[in-house]
Amino acid sequence: MSQTVFQPADPNYDSRVRNSFHDQVIMQSMGITLEAVDPGQVTLGMLFNPSFVQQHGFHHAGATTTALDSACGYAAMSLMPADAEVLTVEFKVSLMAPAAGERFSFVGRVIKPGRTLIFTEGEAVAHGPNGGKVIATMTATMMVVQGRAGINR
Amino acid sequence: MSQTVFQPADPNYDSRVRNSFHDQVIMQSMGITLEAVDPGQVTLGMLFNPSFVQQHGFHHAGATTTALDSACGYAAMSLMPADAEVLTVEFKVSLMAPAAGERFSFVGRVIKPGRTLIFTEGEAVAHGPNGGKVIATMTATMMVVQGRAGINR
Amino acid sequence: MSQTVFQPADPNYDSRVRNSFHDQVIMQSMGITLEAVDPGQVTLGMLFNPSFVQQHGFHHAGATTTALDSACGYAAMSLMPADAEVLTVEFKVSLMAPAAGERFSFVGRVIKPGRTLIFTEGEAVAHGPNGGKVIATMTATMMVVQGRAGINR
Amino acid sequence: MSQTVFQPADPNYDSRVRNSFHDQVIMQSMGITLEAVDPGQVTLGMLFNPSFVQQHGFHHAGATTTALDSACGYAAMSLMPADAEVLTVEFKVSLMAPAAGERFSFVGRVIKPGRTLIFTEGEAVAHGPNGGKVIATMTATMMVVQGRAGINR
Repeated sequence: MSQTVFQPADPNYDSRVRNSFHDQVIMQSMGITLEAVDPGQVTLGMLFNPSFVQQHGFHHAGATTTALDSACGYAAMSLMPADAEVLTVEFKVSLMAPAAGERFSFVGRVIKPGRTLIFTEGEAVAHGPNGGKVIATMTATMMVVQGRAGINR
Repeated sequence: MSQTVFQPADPNYDSRVRNSFHDQVIMQSMGITLEAVDPGQVTLGMLFNPSFVQQHGFHHAGATTTALDSACGYAAMSLMPADAEVLTVEFKVSLMAPAAGERFSFVGRVIKPGRTLIFTEGEAVAHGPNGGKVIATMTATMMVVQGRAGINR
Repeated sequence: MSQTVFQPADPNYDSRVRNSFHDQVIMQSMGITLEAVDPGQVTLGMLFNPSFVQQHGFHHAGATTTALDSACGYAAMSLMPADAEVLTVEFKVSLMAPAAGERFSFVGRVIKPGRTLIFTEGEAVAHGPNGGKVIATMTATMMVVQGRAGINR
Repeated sequence: MSQTVFQPADPNYDSRVRNSFHDQVIMQSMGITLEAVDPGQVTLGMLFNPSFVQQHGFHHAGATTTALDSACGYAAMSLMPADAEVLTVEFKVSLMAPAAGERFSFVGRVIKPGRTLIFTEGEAVAHGPNGGKVIATMTATMMVVQGRAGINR
């Protein structure tokens, strides 16, 4: 994935992202943590959690997707004006390997920022004794919503 | 979505799906229940659960996706031979409205079954005092895996 | 796919769609024709054309996608205000069978209209001596653009 | 996009890809050329062609998709055994900017090769007096098909 340098519209992007992440109760319920916030890029982490596995004992694709969606969404939000909210329009997830590992990292990056829509992509990596392995990728379209009313679309 | 009648390859498709669903620990952790199993179609349900919301108090897209992926996966598995397992290759989710409701239903359907790949689609509906509303759709490609080894791809 | 009745914002939706379709030179170059325009639904047609095949003599997925994208885009445009233009944000295409047939039809439908974004889906059917067969489906996000400037995003 | 070094299963991958590309009549009809073939990566090119534009005079998304699909498909084929054929299972295309330019390049790359499925991604760049600009990205799932029979799925 490309590494572009973005200029955040809001100098307080870091605390805005962290506050919103804190309000996502699902992150705490699933044990997903905020590792890093940069302009246009956000990294999340998760330890293997047996409460969120599928029938073969690996993390369910829904758990991986939950983290990737938040990583991509907050990567987009980090570039938005102070009064804007982020909404996920759609995403596609490709599942390249079982989510087998001791811990997982999820990087979301902005690929193309726009006034209304922001294109992002994400990568999920499983970490174990033998190093890291890409288990899934996401491409997601995020929407910039000005004002609370828009949240209810 | 179209309503095709499919012939299951395994007469015990119902118990095979139910057993596998029971092994998905994430279903219990998130309160997702198995409502109906038919050849090529599976319906799941979920009550509003404040543990799995995003920053605006609605269900996170990851929660909706978790249920849709399992609904589509088990719809595919219902048509598979007795010794086959299902793996999700990829899915796309379109998020049409916030996941606001008292309870949610998730229908997964097979669109085109194949020997190796099964195309499916899913629909998530939020139910509230004013009736039901489609909040998300999924299209997913499922893979037929014969033998346990394949699970670790 | 669901059959919803939509109210067009512009009573002249039919001629607006037809004029724009006429301006898409690629439609004439590939022999794609406009079969029907209804509020929220547009049907295109194409005879088998040996100039647009892949290595096995079937229509290339790009030809099928070209027609599906225009069908979905014009389905969206049929519901837009008179001064609005349509832009495709993204689409996913599932290829269920080879594009083998004497002629092809492509239906695009609006699933969820919005002020800024319109969710659509499309279906491509191959017709031959043995009847019709679904060869591909599309889900596409379309954007409402007010004013020419927006076209150059 | 990542740059992995892949080992081709067939030492004659280059001529196999070139022969198959030559058989895709649509490539010649649209003026799409094969620029480079490497193990797991294929680059195509196209000059601006007024026969394949949409209503605003830019290349139609279908033209961009046609080239991206072939670039990704041949990137996958370059890693396949000598007797294998490639089939596109599905792709998603994100359209980030209008296809405005004097010429276009399309790079397809393998992200994760497998025995049955190969995950790929592609990038379309428009080139003009002011340099290059990414106009679209694709993620595509390709299938390895052994023997001609499989082509007709």
